[in-house]
Order: sequence, then C-alpha cells, then structure tokens
Amino acid sequence: MVKYKVKVEVWLKDNLVDAEGKMVEESLKDLGYNVQSVRVGKSYSFNLDLSNDSLVEKVVDEICRRLLANPVKDKYFFKVMRYEE
Amino acid sequence: MVKYKVKVEVWLKDNLVDAEGKMVEESLKDLGYNVQSVRVGKSYSFNLDLSNDSLVEKVVDEICRRLLANPVKDKYFFKVMRYEE
Repeated sequence: MVKYKVKVEVWLKDNLVDAEGKMVEESLKDLGYNVQSVRVGKSYSFNLDLSNDSLVEKVVDEICRRLLANPVKDKYFFKVMRYEE
Repeated sequence: MVKYKVKVEVWLKDNLVDAEGKMVEESLKDLGYNVQSVRVGKSYSFNLDLSNDSLVEKVVDEICRRLLANPVKDKYFFKVMRYEE
C-alpha cells in the first residue's frame, strides 16, 4: 500500500462568468479595496491509499472527473505528495 | 500604484467537523476509492492594486477577516505575487 496526500483545486473555466466571484468583487469594492478579476474556486484535501501498482495521477484525475469537477465547465489542478507514516 | 496577484485559501479549522468533506468522503468510498480525512475549502484569486505605501500583507489579512473568512471557525492562508504590466 502506498499513501498519498492529495490537494485538488477546481475553478470555473476562465471563459465562463463566475457569478460568486463577481459578488465578492462588488463587496470588496464597496469596502474600498481596489480589486479586479475575482474568481472563486473549491479546494479539496484528502489522504489516498493505493496499491503499489496503481498510477496515482491516473486515479486522482479519475476522482476529479467523476466527482470533484465537471470537465465541461471546470478546470482543475492537483498535486500529490507521497508519504510514509 | 503597485499591482499584486493574490490567492487565498479558506478552510474550516481542523478541530471542526467538515460536513461537506464527510459527504465527499462517503461518495468517494462508495466509488471504491480508499480515502480518508477529506476536507473542503474555498479558494479566491484576484488582482489587487495598492498605493506604494500600503502593506500588502496587512491589507490582504484585513480582506480575509472582513469578508472571505470567519476567524472564529476558519483558518486561512494567502500568497501575494507582485507584478508589473
């Protein structure tokens, strides 16, 4: 068994309007901050155990596509860190 | 005027139960993935213009406390990158 710590970020694709980001941007401007291009994303962190012959990048990509992100509207990034306890 | 790209991550504090993380964890287990300790956070990215005499860390910390995070229940991290256009 191999252990990984995984971090995933999911963002709306850049060409799509981020309504929540717009709201945050307006709120920040109302508070007096000079901000632009606010985008809001989701982050996931988790531990993942894999058998020795699994390909971690393939598995995490599958997790993103199946559950964490919608590839039609989202872009995602992930990083994996192997660890020993 | 000085320009920054800012990235903020907001997570529930570690000692608080992350209900959304639990749901994601159950879903991933149902799909056959061996995951533990799933946590869900929010990410923000934005551009910030500051006058030359502003302290960027102080301003971003203020933005986090006033709008993006609830210091009672959330922890947050941020990084800033100064850029020239």
